[in-house]
Amino acid sequence: MLRRFTIETGREGFYSITKQVETALMESGTREGLCVVFCPHTTAGVAINENADPDVKTDLLLGLNKAFPDRAEFRHAEGNSSAHLKASCVGSSASIPVSQGKLLLGVWQGIYFCEFDGPRSRTFFVQVLSG
Amino acid sequence: MLRRFTIETGREGFYSITKQVETALMESGTREGLCVVFCPHTTAGVAINENADPDVKTDLLLGLNKAFPDRAEFRHAEGNSSAHLKASCVGSSASIPVSQGKLLLGVWQGIYFCEFDGPRSRTFFVQVLSG
Amino acid sequence: MLRRFTIETGREGFYSITKQVETALMESGTREGLCVVFCPHTTAGVAINENADPDVKTDLLLGLNKAFPDRAEFRHAEGNSSAHLKASCVGSSASIPVSQGKLLLGVWQGIYFCEFDGPRSRTFFVQVLSG
Repeated sequence: MLRRFTIETGREGFYSITKQVETALMESGTREGLCVVFCPHTTAGVAINENADPDVKTDLLLGLNKAFPDRAEFRHAEGNSSAHLKASCVGSSASIPVSQGKLLLGVWQGIYFCEFDGPRSRTFFVQVLSG
Repeated sequence: MLRRFTIETGREGFYSITKQVETALMESGTREGLCVVFCPHTTAGVAINENADPDVKTDLLLGLNKAFPDRAEFRHAEGNSSAHLKASCVGSSASIPVSQGKLLLGVWQGIYFCEFDGPRSRTFFVQVLSG
Repeated sequence: MLRRFTIETGREGFYSITKQVETALMESGTREGLCVVFCPHTTAGVAINENADPDVKTDLLLGLNKAFPDRAEFRHAEGNSSAHLKASCVGSSASIPVSQGKLLLGVWQGIYFCEFDGPRSRTFFVQVLSG
């Protein structure tokens, strides 16, 4: 089962997509298996992190921007190489086991679409494998 | 097949969990498929890295601490934003193909539970999918 | 379905392996499922990133080298701890949904074998799961 979602993003940010992933899982009717969330973009990614204090998202962006800043030596003419770097760091997918029809997320975990080079209209896929 | 394990951690560290993953795989009886190790925490993660020289683990922690240090600008009141960052960098899961009943790990690879904000009682899941 | 590929690398670099992954997928005959690319090495990894401007690859390496430089404090005698760090950052696998017999990669996405400590003869695996 595969489902495609769209999302409108701002310049940068972590957008919670846990609800959409749970909806896709419920619609699939899968009780046991694996859920894969995939981002088909190269300056955005998917991460699992804290769903409680919104300051964590602010700090994550700040920390990633410090670790992978824009650099004068970068050659890519589009000027968004640091966004490509941050996307490679968080990764383009997340895999979450499914048990008894539910995502096996921890109590503090949420699934986030990570925009590093918006604003854009973005897409992500949720796939559910039985097993 | 899904199995849950617990682990007691120190303040920070890479803990080898290869044995537990191999045990879960053996118990599943799966010959061909995929093994997914999942960490349900937001200040810990799962990584695959060298299993030989223990100095590599020390250096990995040092390098991650340098790339994602604690920062005065961080706003998350709990004060562990750098741990969230390191967890997002290594990721919350590892996927390893299974062939002829064995993990397809390279000779130098081990699977590690990565603690960035301990000491804590932690959990991880091992899922084996046939295919 | 599991297939093993070999690749000869230079000192460091992002090597496109999208063609090999597509070949393995085609040979598997799988129409719907998940494709997992796995790197069995500890100083190399697998990443998904831009397939258009080759300058992006140069900038990615530069940015990773700046974030995870070699450090005097590193203790691993082999002297390649920064390569282990970069491998842990990009990760040892990539998971890509398969739909209608094709990888669900975005138009700008390619799959890369990331060498951080070459030149070496390297191996990677492509696994296709139906589902």
